[in-house]
Amino acid sequence: MSTDHSGWKAAASEVLRVGPDFRLGAVDPETTPGYEGGKARGAADLAGGIGQLSELQERLFAESRVGVAKDSVLLVLQAMDSAGKGGIVRHVVGGVDPQGVHLTAFKAPTAEERAHDFLWRIEKRLPEHGFIGVFDRSHYEDVLIGRVRQLAPPEEIERRYDAINAFEAEIAASGTRIIKVMLHISRHEQKKRLSERLERPDKHWKYNPGDVDERLLWDDYMAAFQTVFERTSTAAAPWYVVPANSKWYARLAVQELLLETLTAIDPQWPAADYDVEAEKKRLAAS
Amino acid sequence: MSTDHSGWKAAASEVLRVGPDFRLGAVDPETTPGYEGGKARGAADLAGGIGQLSELQERLFAESRVGVAKDSVLLVLQAMDSAGKGGIVRHVVGGVDPQGVHLTAFKAPTAEERAHDFLWRIEKRLPEHGFIGVFDRSHYEDVLIGRVRQLAPPEEIERRYDAINAFEAEIAASGTRIIKVMLHISRHEQKKRLSERLERPDKHWKYNPGDVDERLLWDDYMAAFQTVFERTSTAAAPWYVVPANSKWYARLAVQELLLETLTAIDPQWPAADYDVEAEKKRLAAS
Repeated sequence: MSTDHSGWKAAASEVLRVGPDFRLGAVDPETTPGYEGGKARGAADLAGGIGQLSELQERLFAESRVGVAKDSVLLVLQAMDSAGKGGIVRHVVGGVDPQGVHLTAFKAPTAEERAHDFLWRIEKRLPEHGFIGVFDRSHYEDVLIGRVRQLAPPEEIERRYDAINAFEAEIAASGTRIIKVMLHISRHEQKKRLSERLERPDKHWKYNPGDVDERLLWDDYMAAFQTVFERTSTAAAPWYVVPANSKWYARLAVQELLLETLTAIDPQWPAADYDVEAEKKRLAAS
Repeated sequence: MSTDHSGWKAAASEVLRVGPDFRLGAVDPETTPGYEGGKARGAADLAGGIGQLSELQERLFAESRVGVAKDSVLLVLQAMDSAGKGGIVRHVVGGVDPQGVHLTAFKAPTAEERAHDFLWRIEKRLPEHGFIGVFDRSHYEDVLIGRVRQLAPPEEIERRYDAINAFEAEIAASGTRIIKVMLHISRHEQKKRLSERLERPDKHWKYNPGDVDERLLWDDYMAAFQTVFERTSTAAAPWYVVPANSKWYARLAVQELLLETLTAIDPQWPAADYDVEAEKKRLAAS
């Protein structure tokens, strides 16, 4: 189902979805699947989408305030460094009322977190009904860097794919719509972006020498992502691979995925659970 | 110190600050202290301020990412129902990157929270260095509704003012700039706003019959606020009373208080803690 943004010629959820025969290597990060129109039109559509998304989110939030919300949304963001997760948070998530958003940026696990199962810290950050949860990195780190850097034995990595599927099926059944997004940039584009961080003193803080260490393992990471897609793109919690060399497209596409999801939820302004006429009289007399 | 917004003719932090002889009853909620210019100019200044606030916030956040941030900001919002706390969160706080904001909406305490000291749940939500924390309601509920509704014995209420001052002095000493704001609307303005919520089906969810119950205790609440100001407006954590009948002014004034605070912190883009030239070579070779 496509919303009425004129630049979209196909539903983002269909053209970006990871299906059974998906090959990451076949996705060109320069492309803009489903969208006809360039950067300028994309910016206008993004701005237009903010109003739509805000109203849908407010309705969802309103349902939670009177205890009738049965749905929530969880946006999971994964990507190589500099692919634009921060820009999604700023320009897409930042467009809706912060009251209705729960954002978590997962870092390397602490000692306490490592002493528990890898899903322990994740579960605590799931959005309540009526909220949009956003994970900047997630439990997928445990099968991405976890696998590439061999941070756990192979049989434990293997166990995690099934554990993730069971976990996500459970939270989907409880009313959470899960949108898993990989922002896909090319190796060359990453070099350009990291290079810019080194050139500009106001960007130095965004650069970490470890970024190059991970970059040197690019092919291993792509293989780890491919396995993630094969093992964990399920009906309950599908993956979407968003070509992200064009920042404007990546932002627009993630906004569209959120819009499609919220439109499907179709949240309604809740009916009053009190006697409106009686309250008008009480208020008038107060 | 005033920023360069042209409509401001005095520092918001000076004209709105609760000093020794402050009387809440003497503040007219219709006024716009320190600001010359009406609604249209106010909207333009608010829009202009978003860019300034965003850059200052990003610098503060950058310092936290490389471990050199020594400051954080805590904005505490208190008010009667419908005074506009939500609008501040949406239109002022919503203008900065959600990654750098920790927002907490405090509700009536849970059984677990009531089993602890009233500051227990507050301490857990304090912002880390580099972050802007926002409290939509706070520990002041425990001396506002707590006092008006006699939810605790008088001697416990009495104890809390000193406990709050000691607590806030401690967190201020650790680097948190505390900005405590009461949004001040008139009783008549509240009636208008609650009435609008009852007239519009899309606003019914924002209305609660309990709002009128509290409204009937208006004078008691004003007296409780007055005592809060007398007992807890300290050098380390001053109160600001913001006339809020004009929503545009209240938003602009809170933005200005944040701008003044962040300008005083004067966060700087952190210097690289790695060898920039060596990294350029590593990246080029990767």
